[in-house]
Amino acid sequence: MSGIRIPRINWSPVELTSRLIGRGVKFNFASGSPDPSLIPINIIKESMNQVIAEFGPAALAYPGAGGLRELRIEVSRYLLKYLKISTNWRNIIITSGAQHAIKLLSQLLVHRGTRIYVENPTFYETIAPLKFQGGKLIGVPITNGGIDVGSLEKIAGEPGILYTIPSCHNPTGTCMDIEDRRHLIDLSREKGLLIVEDDPYTILSREAVLPIRSMSSDVIYVGTLSKLLGPGLRIGFVVAPDWLRGGLERIEQHDFSTSTLTQLIAYRLLKRGAVEEIIEKARPLYRRKLSILLDSLERYMPGSLMYEPKCGFYALISLGAPAAETLRNAIRLGAVFVPASKFFIGEEKRDAARLSVSTIKEENIEDGVRAIAKARSG
Amino acid sequence: MSGIRIPRINWSPVELTSRLIGRGVKFNFASGSPDPSLIPINIIKESMNQVIAEFGPAALAYPGAGGLRELRIEVSRYLLKYLKISTNWRNIIITSGAQHAIKLLSQLLVHRGTRIYVENPTFYETIAPLKFQGGKLIGVPITNGGIDVGSLEKIAGEPGILYTIPSCHNPTGTCMDIEDRRHLIDLSREKGLLIVEDDPYTILSREAVLPIRSMSSDVIYVGTLSKLLGPGLRIGFVVAPDWLRGGLERIEQHDFSTSTLTQLIAYRLLKRGAVEEIIEKARPLYRRKLSILLDSLERYMPGSLMYEPKCGFYALISLGAPAAETLRNAIRLGAVFVPASKFFIGEEKRDAARLSVSTIKEENIEDGVRAIAKARSG
Repeated sequence: MSGIRIPRINWSPVELTSRLIGRGVKFNFASGSPDPSLIPINIIKESMNQVIAEFGPAALAYPGAGGLRELRIEVSRYLLKYLKISTNWRNIIITSGAQHAIKLLSQLLVHRGTRIYVENPTFYETIAPLKFQGGKLIGVPITNGGIDVGSLEKIAGEPGILYTIPSCHNPTGTCMDIEDRRHLIDLSREKGLLIVEDDPYTILSREAVLPIRSMSSDVIYVGTLSKLLGPGLRIGFVVAPDWLRGGLERIEQHDFSTSTLTQLIAYRLLKRGAVEEIIEKARPLYRRKLSILLDSLERYMPGSLMYEPKCGFYALISLGAPAAETLRNAIRLGAVFVPASKFFIGEEKRDAARLSVSTIKEENIEDGVRAIAKARSG
Repeated sequence: MSGIRIPRINWSPVELTSRLIGRGVKFNFASGSPDPSLIPINIIKESMNQVIAEFGPAALAYPGAGGLRELRIEVSRYLLKYLKISTNWRNIIITSGAQHAIKLLSQLLVHRGTRIYVENPTFYETIAPLKFQGGKLIGVPITNGGIDVGSLEKIAGEPGILYTIPSCHNPTGTCMDIEDRRHLIDLSREKGLLIVEDDPYTILSREAVLPIRSMSSDVIYVGTLSKLLGPGLRIGFVVAPDWLRGGLERIEQHDFSTSTLTQLIAYRLLKRGAVEEIIEKARPLYRRKLSILLDSLERYMPGSLMYEPKCGFYALISLGAPAAETLRNAIRLGAVFVPASKFFIGEEKRDAARLSVSTIKEENIEDGVRAIAKARSG
């Protein structure tokens, strides 16, 4: 009627799988949500009530662009203390989760044809908005030590953006060492690459290396409180270089999407030191869960691992059978995972599957892997 | 370095003014926030605690695209009961406030050169994302009865989008009558115009006419709970026709910005009937405040009104002096308002000012108007 055509947008395989999850699912390897037992629900409840007592109706006022000053200051302290990132609070832009941060960055930085170098494979959901803006994705091979800097050097003929998850990579679980990070910073300067570092997982692991942003303030750092305090708060942030922060604040006016209430709850939680309590439990728990996953894979699906995970939530495996079909069988056995073909750039890997240990119970991991192994043969 | 240029985005005059508001401001005519005395802070607190008790850690899980089923169902009931809008809950897409809804719609519906017919003047912040997508804004004159349908008929030579605030218009306060709404629906069909109806205010006024969406299901309706329950929750929604809803759900994957926690709080508030209690107080209060504003303008700035407000929060006046300069003087007298030149399409009205009665105390309105009148002469 009005001649309006809407652009084609695909469902994310993660979202699609999460919609399949019914009550019968015992082995949830699909979700990237934090372990429910680690969500500090009582502390969150207390903080919520404190926020209402302290701020009254102002807790329900418009958020304003850029984020609340109180929260930005607490995030700057958190970054310095736990991740050795030093920044003025004004360079921290609060967003509605890291995904929202990536979307805003996409709108500011990506135009039709902008070259975006990414690990291949990489996280489907974060590259979707980069692609939507017309960016040209260029996959860079990944090794057990994260992105292959030597390959990047050959591939990066033209300036552009390097979107990377250097620690506890999604979906491979790999982690770059400090030497490669140094090389990456040098190479990016030489080649004119703007590094966008997506880092949800370092905080949750003793094995992870400190962020690239802690070594170079040229880096655009995307962080989140989702994996610590719960993704339902929708609090993420960007540590933005000076040339970018004004633009980021201004584009937030286009959606004003970050809740004042959840910003204040996050502020209260950071201020009372909730992070300390959580990571003390979270780090050993996720470490154990990942080890159990790797042991179980070795036992029930030997040789299936595509990369050696070092930290975080994920392992990427090759099922030796089509992932979509295996998933259908697995659901009957109470198990779900994410078919990972779409995590690859410019190629299809129909038998690739991402397994996450973040939400599944420790004691269920082995049985879950056995269920998936069984599901491969129908 | 990387050859990346970021697009130029302007500050909204509303956001700019809100940043000027210091502690000394007694007469806040700038904000479009609801009256703080109407924010049901105790009920919100109760609902928050209920949500935690009822959902536990699931209240902090990822929201998923499209919004939580519970909330969508409650919104559909709210729409039917208060606004006579009948829709399946699946056609309701929850967003992080109406502003976020407009941004998502912009990304789906607007391409370079898409014609977007808007009231002239209109609300700066909602048209900013439409413009950012490359839409071509075409202003349509507005009368005391809202958009001038006769003018639109002449101007709308080509199909496109009609973005309209038919009730309690921002910034003019005008309201279309039912006859004109019928004409508008017919005209839109004839001319190939897709109506996007932005309607934050009808619920708050007995004087407002029912939404255009209640008369035609072709209309894309944008609603919000911000003016009722508090903008800090960031809960808005779109009532989307079938052809649009899948696209809207899928593009939400690009930001996933709507908090699960605040969605559940909104769900609880709607379910317990909080709307009823609020509108019983809100409708007469806003009505009185607007009347006091109009009486005070008549007394201290006769002839300044550019349109006759019928309902809602706003009046647009011509100061007879540059608004920016007057604002500087007014701040010294404790008063703020929004310079409204940028609310106009393709013309500058440097002496135009938007006055809002939503947050200022009833008993301060007259003195506030007197302060602005005084500020005009320095």
